[in-house]
Amino acid sequence: MNRELTRTDFTLDPAAKSWIESAQGSDFPVQNLPYGVFEIPNSKNSGSSASARIGIAIGDRIVDLAELERARLLRVPGVSAAQLERDCLNEFISLGSSIHRLVRERVFALLVEGTRASDELRSNSDHCRAVLVARGDARMLMPVRAGDFVDFYSSLEHATNVGIMFRDPTQPLLPNWKHIPIGYHGRSSSLYVSGEPIIRPCGQLKPDDNPPVFAPSKQMDFELELGFVVGKNTRPGERVDARKAGEYMFGMVIVNDWSARDIQRWEYVPLGPFLGKSFATSVSAWVVPMDVIEGLRVAEPERDVDILSYLDDGGNKSLDISLRVSIQSAKMTAPQEICRTNFRHMYWTINQQLAHMTSNGTPIRCGDLYASGTVSGKTPDSFGSMLELCWKGTRPLSLSDGSTRTFIQDGDTVTMAASAMLEGSVRIGFGECSAMVTAASE
Amino acid sequence: MNRELTRTDFTLDPAAKSWIESAQGSDFPVQNLPYGVFEIPNSKNSGSSASARIGIAIGDRIVDLAELERARLLRVPGVSAAQLERDCLNEFISLGSSIHRLVRERVFALLVEGTRASDELRSNSDHCRAVLVARGDARMLMPVRAGDFVDFYSSLEHATNVGIMFRDPTQPLLPNWKHIPIGYHGRSSSLYVSGEPIIRPCGQLKPDDNPPVFAPSKQMDFELELGFVVGKNTRPGERVDARKAGEYMFGMVIVNDWSARDIQRWEYVPLGPFLGKSFATSVSAWVVPMDVIEGLRVAEPERDVDILSYLDDGGNKSLDISLRVSIQSAKMTAPQEICRTNFRHMYWTINQQLAHMTSNGTPIRCGDLYASGTVSGKTPDSFGSMLELCWKGTRPLSLSDGSTRTFIQDGDTVTMAASAMLEGSVRIGFGECSAMVTAASE
Repeated sequence: MNRELTRTDFTLDPAAKSWIESAQGSDFPVQNLPYGVFEIPNSKNSGSSASARIGIAIGDRIVDLAELERARLLRVPGVSAAQLERDCLNEFISLGSSIHRLVRERVFALLVEGTRASDELRSNSDHCRAVLVARGDARMLMPVRAGDFVDFYSSLEHATNVGIMFRDPTQPLLPNWKHIPIGYHGRSSSLYVSGEPIIRPCGQLKPDDNPPVFAPSKQMDFELELGFVVGKNTRPGERVDARKAGEYMFGMVIVNDWSARDIQRWEYVPLGPFLGKSFATSVSAWVVPMDVIEGLRVAEPERDVDILSYLDDGGNKSLDISLRVSIQSAKMTAPQEICRTNFRHMYWTINQQLAHMTSNGTPIRCGDLYASGTVSGKTPDSFGSMLELCWKGTRPLSLSDGSTRTFIQDGDTVTMAASAMLEGSVRIGFGECSAMVTAASE
Repeated sequence: MNRELTRTDFTLDPAAKSWIESAQGSDFPVQNLPYGVFEIPNSKNSGSSASARIGIAIGDRIVDLAELERARLLRVPGVSAAQLERDCLNEFISLGSSIHRLVRERVFALLVEGTRASDELRSNSDHCRAVLVARGDARMLMPVRAGDFVDFYSSLEHATNVGIMFRDPTQPLLPNWKHIPIGYHGRSSSLYVSGEPIIRPCGQLKPDDNPPVFAPSKQMDFELELGFVVGKNTRPGERVDARKAGEYMFGMVIVNDWSARDIQRWEYVPLGPFLGKSFATSVSAWVVPMDVIEGLRVAEPERDVDILSYLDDGGNKSLDISLRVSIQSAKMTAPQEICRTNFRHMYWTINQQLAHMTSNGTPIRCGDLYASGTVSGKTPDSFGSMLELCWKGTRPLSLSDGSTRTFIQDGDTVTMAASAMLEGSVRIGFGECSAMVTAASE
């Protein structure tokens, strides 16, 4: 029996199963179909930019979209194989959401069990070999080239924790915080895809009562975040309506906003974080499409301060996405979980972030990356940074190799993961955002 | 007699004159030869990106480099006409400084009076018509696509003025200011070339003792700055030596860092300026090459605080560049000068800015734009913003149409100009950075 493919949101049907066995129970079942950019290091094209191409993850495989089109199986009008051989998603994103939906529906039909289309692919071993790449053979690239990278500060618990530690424990939140989704511009050149090692930064450190010194940071930290990728350009002067902001998004990724707390503390007044953040930001390789993300919307947190109407997103725009962080030192044989939290705790939604961002008429561009700010929950084991988990160095974490941590050491690998339940029954994941910290450059 | 072209810095010879009469006394004599990107709106190619091309300004003309190559007059190995038909300079910049120098030397030889090469161009009227475009016929485009845009805060007088007005008149400078070239990341999507109108932003304004409102900014301001364009990529972990930082720069431009003071004041703690700055930044169309800029180096200001060795640029890295700002309302018949200052007053040099920027190992990329921060001198008529010129609204400026200003009104055009003397005798200019402010979007 062939499945009927009529509902536009059919790809979220929890009953659907892929004929690719590894899809079931993985981060990438047929309901997810996230986009990424990859190359095969040992292929004949390796080393040239022509070898980079756009793929969709399914279980332990990647659907090579260019090869799919070459095999005449993609069949989306206006999409050529050449457009799918790119080293970032930006151009593909700019094709627009109706094209993305056609691609998604077609790939779903090819991968789901029991359709005529999937039989056509499955039964042709040449096509299967060309189109379905083993994820283990691929090297993932940074999925987008972000024209602008913005980092928000949207967790009430995180802002409160930082305020208690560094400002006034009796009034930890600044007066603007519940009116404005506070954010700042970060650096685009130092966005690295998951898996790339991160070099410990040097910078000006200011020991109390002593002059500043230039040295490797001693307080290297992670920040657990999610980010959304912009899916539609706006014109100068245009403002995005908070209720419709999802239409301007392409998908979401995990972001680790690496932070050197000692550099940051000395430099950040009055213009905000600069070199304490700009050395590196890690980003997961797979962009989970907004069609999936929209299925994760839940009620928003209570707000005890009225917000201005341009920030009214219509409600129910929070996202129920579970988040975890683990750490593994060079001596450890397995990662150790140090944080578990949920994105639904965020005070400001991604819709409010984008509406605020564009409220002054600044244009947004396909491929821009806007991150949430550190995601912290209410309990100490749900804090999204070492600064908070170890409370400014006063509560060291014990690791399974017998060592302790207050900040991140050279050789430590920090891995973040995100997952969610679709319609309460199918688990989708974001893959991971993982990176090892290496020693500072001489 | 044919000139000898032997010294690598021959193009700075103050005795050189162009056979293009309008060059003499203009911003663009043959010693300057700045790069820009232009299109001819009424040409058969208008509207397509193929019509954009790279040019060099000389007097009231633009040398169309693609046409020069097509006429077989450029003759720089490795540079094709197609590479010169681009909508930004980034790719040309990445060809490297030895190619830029060959282009510059060749264009100099073609334009200076009395060389064999210039006779060849001058005597061929077909070539002259194809190669020498009237600047009045051209529409200038944003010269670079900035991967990252950074704004520093390097004027002691500006930082002091702001500190007196908004913090503590007895201790206007924060403790880090004389140790760190303070800066922050700005927005790349809202960089506009000189001539493009700027839409007044809306945003959250916070009247004293009242809740915030969303409305058009009432305190729109300019900031007079210069910026440098990055000329050479670095790798992750690489730091630029302050003494050699000029080798990583392609040239300089005038920058107007438009600021909405009321939006900025309410939003800027604790992460710095965001929407108060991100709506627009204007940039002059012509990039003055570093070969010219290096000829403007002068002694640095006295510093009463020791700086760390990574910021030691070897001295004599300040730049003697005169700056002016004028304003013209819709009713005025001519611009009125409101500020005159000099870039040599800056406390931190461009070398120190770049060394600091890269001190944490973040990569820089060709085409990045790093601006100086507002340039203010010691006297009230040398302040580089309305905030300072009118001292937070308390000293209105009188304009020639009988009106007064404390900030910028709709219909006002703000024009910045920069110029310098080469070897004390030839004046070179940066063109202008000019933009009219228009009413906020509905």
